[in-house]
Amino acid sequence: MVIYDYDRSERLGMPEAVYCEGKDGASVNAILAELSEQPDHPVLFTRISEMQLKQLDPKLTNQLDYDAVSLTAILNGCCPARKGKVAIVCAGTSDLSVAREARRTLEFTGIETELVVDVGVAGIHRLLDRIDHIRGFNVIIVIAGMDAALASVMGGLVRQPVIGVPTSVGYGVASGGTTALNSMLASCGQGISVTNIDNGFGGACAAIRILNMLEK
Amino acid sequence: MVIYDYDRSERLGMPEAVYCEGKDGASVNAILAELSEQPDHPVLFTRISEMQLKQLDPKLTNQLDYDAVSLTAILNGCCPARKGKVAIVCAGTSDLSVAREARRTLEFTGIETELVVDVGVAGIHRLLDRIDHIRGFNVIIVIAGMDAALASVMGGLVRQPVIGVPTSVGYGVASGGTTALNSMLASCGQGISVTNIDNGFGGACAAIRILNMLEK
Amino acid sequence: MVIYDYDRSERLGMPEAVYCEGKDGASVNAILAELSEQPDHPVLFTRISEMQLKQLDPKLTNQLDYDAVSLTAILNGCCPARKGKVAIVCAGTSDLSVAREARRTLEFTGIETELVVDVGVAGIHRLLDRIDHIRGFNVIIVIAGMDAALASVMGGLVRQPVIGVPTSVGYGVASGGTTALNSMLASCGQGISVTNIDNGFGGACAAIRILNMLEK
Amino acid sequence: MVIYDYDRSERLGMPEAVYCEGKDGASVNAILAELSEQPDHPVLFTRISEMQLKQLDPKLTNQLDYDAVSLTAILNGCCPARKGKVAIVCAGTSDLSVAREARRTLEFTGIETELVVDVGVAGIHRLLDRIDHIRGFNVIIVIAGMDAALASVMGGLVRQPVIGVPTSVGYGVASGGTTALNSMLASCGQGISVTNIDNGFGGACAAIRILNMLEK
Amino acid sequence: MVIYDYDRSERLGMPEAVYCEGKDGASVNAILAELSEQPDHPVLFTRISEMQLKQLDPKLTNQLDYDAVSLTAILNGCCPARKGKVAIVCAGTSDLSVAREARRTLEFTGIETELVVDVGVAGIHRLLDRIDHIRGFNVIIVIAGMDAALASVMGGLVRQPVIGVPTSVGYGVASGGTTALNSMLASCGQGISVTNIDNGFGGACAAIRILNMLEK
Amino acid sequence: MVIYDYDRSERLGMPEAVYCEGKDGASVNAILAELSEQPDHPVLFTRISEMQLKQLDPKLTNQLDYDAVSLTAILNGCCPARKGKVAIVCAGTSDLSVAREARRTLEFTGIETELVVDVGVAGIHRLLDRIDHIRGFNVIIVIAGMDAALASVMGGLVRQPVIGVPTSVGYGVASGGTTALNSMLASCGQGISVTNIDNGFGGACAAIRILNMLEK
Amino acid sequence: MVIYDYDRSERLGMPEAVYCEGKDGASVNAILAELSEQPDHPVLFTRISEMQLKQLDPKLTNQLDYDAVSLTAILNGCCPARKGKVAIVCAGTSDLSVAREARRTLEFTGIETELVVDVGVAGIHRLLDRIDHIRGFNVIIVIAGMDAALASVMGGLVRQPVIGVPTSVGYGVASGGTTALNSMLASCGQGISVTNIDNGFGGACAAIRILNMLEK
Amino acid sequence: MVIYDYDRSERLGMPEAVYCEGKDGASVNAILAELSEQPDHPVLFTRISEMQLKQLDPKLTNQLDYDAVSLTAILNGCCPARKGKVAIVCAGTSDLSVAREARRTLEFTGIETELVVDVGVAGIHRLLDRIDHIRGFNVIIVIAGMDAALASVMGGLVRQPVIGVPTSVGYGVASGGTTALNSMLASCGQGISVTNIDNGFGGACAAIRILNMLEK
Repeated sequence: MVIYDYDRSERLGMPEAVYCEGKDGASVNAILAELSEQPDHPVLFTRISEMQLKQLDPKLTNQLDYDAVSLTAILNGCCPARKGKVAIVCAGTSDLSVAREARRTLEFTGIETELVVDVGVAGIHRLLDRIDHIRGFNVIIVIAGMDAALASVMGGLVRQPVIGVPTSVGYGVASGGTTALNSMLASCGQGISVTNIDNGFGGACAAIRILNMLEK
Repeated sequence: MVIYDYDRSERLGMPEAVYCEGKDGASVNAILAELSEQPDHPVLFTRISEMQLKQLDPKLTNQLDYDAVSLTAILNGCCPARKGKVAIVCAGTSDLSVAREARRTLEFTGIETELVVDVGVAGIHRLLDRIDHIRGFNVIIVIAGMDAALASVMGGLVRQPVIGVPTSVGYGVASGGTTALNSMLASCGQGISVTNIDNGFGGACAAIRILNMLEK
Repeated sequence: MVIYDYDRSERLGMPEAVYCEGKDGASVNAILAELSEQPDHPVLFTRISEMQLKQLDPKLTNQLDYDAVSLTAILNGCCPARKGKVAIVCAGTSDLSVAREARRTLEFTGIETELVVDVGVAGIHRLLDRIDHIRGFNVIIVIAGMDAALASVMGGLVRQPVIGVPTSVGYGVASGGTTALNSMLASCGQGISVTNIDNGFGGACAAIRILNMLEK
Repeated sequence: MVIYDYDRSERLGMPEAVYCEGKDGASVNAILAELSEQPDHPVLFTRISEMQLKQLDPKLTNQLDYDAVSLTAILNGCCPARKGKVAIVCAGTSDLSVAREARRTLEFTGIETELVVDVGVAGIHRLLDRIDHIRGFNVIIVIAGMDAALASVMGGLVRQPVIGVPTSVGYGVASGGTTALNSMLASCGQGISVTNIDNGFGGACAAIRILNMLEK
Repeated sequence: MVIYDYDRSERLGMPEAVYCEGKDGASVNAILAELSEQPDHPVLFTRISEMQLKQLDPKLTNQLDYDAVSLTAILNGCCPARKGKVAIVCAGTSDLSVAREARRTLEFTGIETELVVDVGVAGIHRLLDRIDHIRGFNVIIVIAGMDAALASVMGGLVRQPVIGVPTSVGYGVASGGTTALNSMLASCGQGISVTNIDNGFGGACAAIRILNMLEK
Repeated sequence: MVIYDYDRSERLGMPEAVYCEGKDGASVNAILAELSEQPDHPVLFTRISEMQLKQLDPKLTNQLDYDAVSLTAILNGCCPARKGKVAIVCAGTSDLSVAREARRTLEFTGIETELVVDVGVAGIHRLLDRIDHIRGFNVIIVIAGMDAALASVMGGLVRQPVIGVPTSVGYGVASGGTTALNSMLASCGQGISVTNIDNGFGGACAAIRILNMLEK
Repeated sequence: MVIYDYDRSERLGMPEAVYCEGKDGASVNAILAELSEQPDHPVLFTRISEMQLKQLDPKLTNQLDYDAVSLTAILNGCCPARKGKVAIVCAGTSDLSVAREARRTLEFTGIETELVVDVGVAGIHRLLDRIDHIRGFNVIIVIAGMDAALASVMGGLVRQPVIGVPTSVGYGVASGGTTALNSMLASCGQGISVTNIDNGFGGACAAIRILNMLEK
Repeated sequence: MVIYDYDRSERLGMPEAVYCEGKDGASVNAILAELSEQPDHPVLFTRISEMQLKQLDPKLTNQLDYDAVSLTAILNGCCPARKGKVAIVCAGTSDLSVAREARRTLEFTGIETELVVDVGVAGIHRLLDRIDHIRGFNVIIVIAGMDAALASVMGGLVRQPVIGVPTSVGYGVASGGTTALNSMLASCGQGISVTNIDNGFGGACAAIRILNMLEK
């Protein structure tokens, strides 16, 4: 039997989350069954595919708030509202699934977010037009694939924490996201910190750690 | 002539810094000469080797506060004290030059720091003994080479922002720091964000962006 | 016709095993037919997919003890019980298929095993709670993907042989298992030795070589 | 004896050039001696180190116009002036040696150039201030290391040919220039074409091929 | 709602293009619907799969000129004819889909093209037989996978701009196109510039930037 | 001040060792000074270069038993003799420094060893001639660079634990040792486990963990 | 229309072959139709999948001698018998498809071959038992995946040309065949030359070039 | 004491050779001393640096025929003349050290060679002018760095065995020789076989295996 790490939320100020990729249906079902019996304990399931969803007990599935774009599911509702606002910025709609994973994680945790899309650096005026609005948030999460140049430009325009989440969108040398990752790591924009490729959840969690500073 | 980006500190809340690696002596000297004439404008020079130092005008060199371990030099003193405390944690003395670059950057910016060494996970009790003390800081920077397992363990023990700075210390598969970098990026500790290999300066800047939240 | 290496068990103290990945149905069927005629000769088939299974002569398939999680099949029963106990430790249920391959290999060889799951380092207390129990085994096999930090921590807690089996579980830089592999190889835990990625069979065989010391 | 490819200039509209890296002193000296006897035949030597220079016959060395920053030497003067103007743009002085190799190649070929430095994207206003001036050139060569984001931004601001020359400047994941190269190749700026890392000569030659269109 | 970058064509002299890979059907449909209402505004859709096509509103699909080999679709017709001719040269029919993407992009932009196939260097006489014809074009785009030796040989035979587009055709070390890419970048043919792997669109755009010189 | 992990020997049955690579002279001197005051506490220094040795206090240096081939130094003598014999097998004298690091580690720990050289598989008869002798040891450590084929062949000839230590000896694709490492990991010899490249110390420690089974 | 390189056989002493991977059905069909009209002109099709086969005109398909294991098809029969015998040696049945591609290529060219399987080095006696027989051939092609140690051992046992063909068989670090390739390239067996991964056709052609020496 | 593999020449028809890279002076001296006492036993030393040479007993050094370009030394003269002629072809003088290693190995073995330089494909006419001469040799060794396109072109022009030896000459993506290696392996020239990077010795040995066919 699985021993669930129940005090993570308390200990780390982090969302309770279950990473489902690579788990077989039976395992996910067991965890879900156990957790569904504690209705005052909100849980976020990440990387849960529609295929996995179909293998679950329908009675349990009905209790889930599922989002097919980000492959996330929320059980027992979201956490109470918390302080802080996070802007999630991305260059185009190709990165939307990762951006949505970040957004769902933050909203589940009770944090206000806004998604700013189509501000790629190949048309820099579009970003500059919206930069003052972006400066109104506590933390900026930049979601970008390909050359990920958006992260560098952003780093030179705001004083807030900038968390880069590279995506695997692209082909050729961009395929798999390593170029976006390395580009963010080598960024000439000072003080950008970075998560694993496609890790929208991780980018959100890094933001949550920062917003923990606003709590009490 | 070089057009120095003077308003970076104002615009970004970041230290004014000059990255010297790969610059020839004449270039560094020119920048230093220009900046030394503005005594109320503190500047940090990073990755400035002793070899480069010797190529500078001695009159200028004398004005520098140089640290040979971190290869940093401070001109015109440090910035005024700011809010926030940062713990810089590393597994052993091999990572000291990177840890010192982070520390010097923070101290230059006016931020209080503490260096916690020799808490490698191969003797986990040593870290556990000091974890309550570490929890007293606003931001934790973990400096680690080899398998960088320290970052993952730390991520499971504190609710503060954890910034991982992988180092190039090690041989074989660890050589160059890619293993440490990837290990931190793939960390099972939630919400750890990461900088480029050996980028103590960048880790410090990411912390500064976070501490900007404490400023007015 | 295939010349089967019959004396491997005798010569090396190793399980008789047939690696099926990449073999077409006809080849597997031929080997199975030949071996099924020697009922006192137990054989383990590894990496045999359900697809391959369906291509076999049903009369032969019926003689197989098949496990769909580890993709292993046992023919002619297990070997007689041998001395030694092996703990197979992993961070979560995502690594279960590899852990099961190791376990099935050991059980087939007649060796007692125990599977210890959900002791990931992101909640280090869960591992520490069970470490005394783990110390009761002769050999520890650590199965881990992502950052594989569990291997390093384990190496600092026990005096037994620790065999690391990295898994390909994960995404981004963790994808394919190279990060887990390199992290184990670069481990600051002394004297950990490592097998190929996802090689649960190999980890078990390394343990068997060690337990050969207890025979006669 | 070396058979020099004398008609390259005629056939390809390209500078006559001798690549010296990896050649021993005796070989370079032999080529130089042969070519110095044809004073109406201008030749460019690239990647010729000061060490190699010292191994040459001083009588020959005196005929060379040597530039220690770009490691280029010109024999028998430059080619006649040609049509077209090329802007060489780079983010900082660290990329100067590569920028200079491009510039020397173009000037040797008789083409007017201008070097625009310190327009890194981390302070995007500095580039925007000068973009109208840059639009006045026929071809733009962007020299950039690290994340090479400058190439992407440039690609979205001008309609001229943009040739990206990635440099090996940087450390960690930027070390060796692969990140800059891949970032340029994956650029979201349309129609940027790229040369090998540190290949200032190649970037210049690509520009020359384009300017060949203005000849005749 | 998506903010489309409408002035790209005006600003950059580039085709208006929508990159569809990774976009879900709903997003593509929305963009298509918006653009189809501006019939005097030609648009090129790239990397739009037949699967995506099927998810679109059939009324909109009917307005598209779709090419299944290059996965491109043209809406609202092609742009007016422009000056300049481009040769697209490739070694064999395996590279046809990339060659066609380049060709369709140029034709959409109003530029005359010719496709020259089966001139691989393993039978060098076939290329030499056609080289005079090839010299009649303004720009040469070389599409090649495997060892991409065709680009190097071409670079030594013509004075025109040569743009190399490596392809992912091949197996073993050629798989994915990195060998072709690196071979082109390291080419001993002077002044070849290169795009991302399989980026026929990008190769065409680089040619368009060059041909912009012929426009007033 | 450094907090030395004194109970490692007790806790893990491992040699007390100080890894010196990357440590500056002052740090090594401090550790050495502290440890030299506990004469009944034997310590092994690894990867201590002759350069580092020269930076130490000569009074301390005199107490060291230094070996220039393996770059190891022993302070306060070796540990008491223990049970078990280890064969260290290598293909040629090029791998001698790594083989010696393994040997010195084992001898320091009180374990009997024998070095078997020049049994490369390119002259397989030389290995076969000595295989019966090699079978007389408890553990076999195979040190090999290049293709590391010796490990695979050994794995098929003995029933003892086989620990592979790949070396960085070689050039071209063998350079740095990754080929030897991967070859050992992918070995068709069952149950070989592997350490980091050039990690003679680690190979010895893995053997010690196994020999801990003979202690009680 | 495709211009087929008809004189390859004459010019190079090589089999006429059409590489089909990545070609669409229509292209293959066109080539096949053209060539089927020249019945005295034998042609080998390689990497032609069953899927492609189904897309061809059945009238043409009927003329093909197709082999589903090696994905090769022969049109217009084989070439006349030639001098020379080639041994194709592999470690196990997993490498059979590559071995068969080599064999079919040689047989098509009129050369006698023998396939020697199951002589992996993990049971070295099986190879030694057959080595005298193997020495009776003019050329030895070694097909091997994983660690490819068989090539090195073979290189030390025979004086004939040894051509290594690495295969992509395997998982983890062996996946894709790079480890087998590098292991063969770094082989301590002198004078082994190597082809691309899975290139059974290329290995056969290298043998044919050698056997060309026996002609005339 | 080292057990020298004396019968290699007899058994394999190969030159007796000692690879010196990575061996310390004492080891080389010992081998040299032992072999110098058998004056009728010619031996080739490869990769022996001038530094190593200086560490040898001068009495022994005097007996060596040393070549500083190829870092080879011959002891006890060359072997008797053998049948066969080998052309060593390279694109430029930068690859000379590798070409010379191949040449010296062949000459030591008693085989006639010719070195053909400056036939790079960027000026294809130079190669075509000499191809008839090259066709007069039994085996062609192509030495090439950068894009190594020469190997592919050669493969399409001759029916002899073509052995590719990639070199590490070059910078950027060419640095270290991997691009040249992969380009040769992926060559569209049929039946080219390849050795490790910079392995002139190996290329020569592969030729010798082929020429063994001409012996009795």
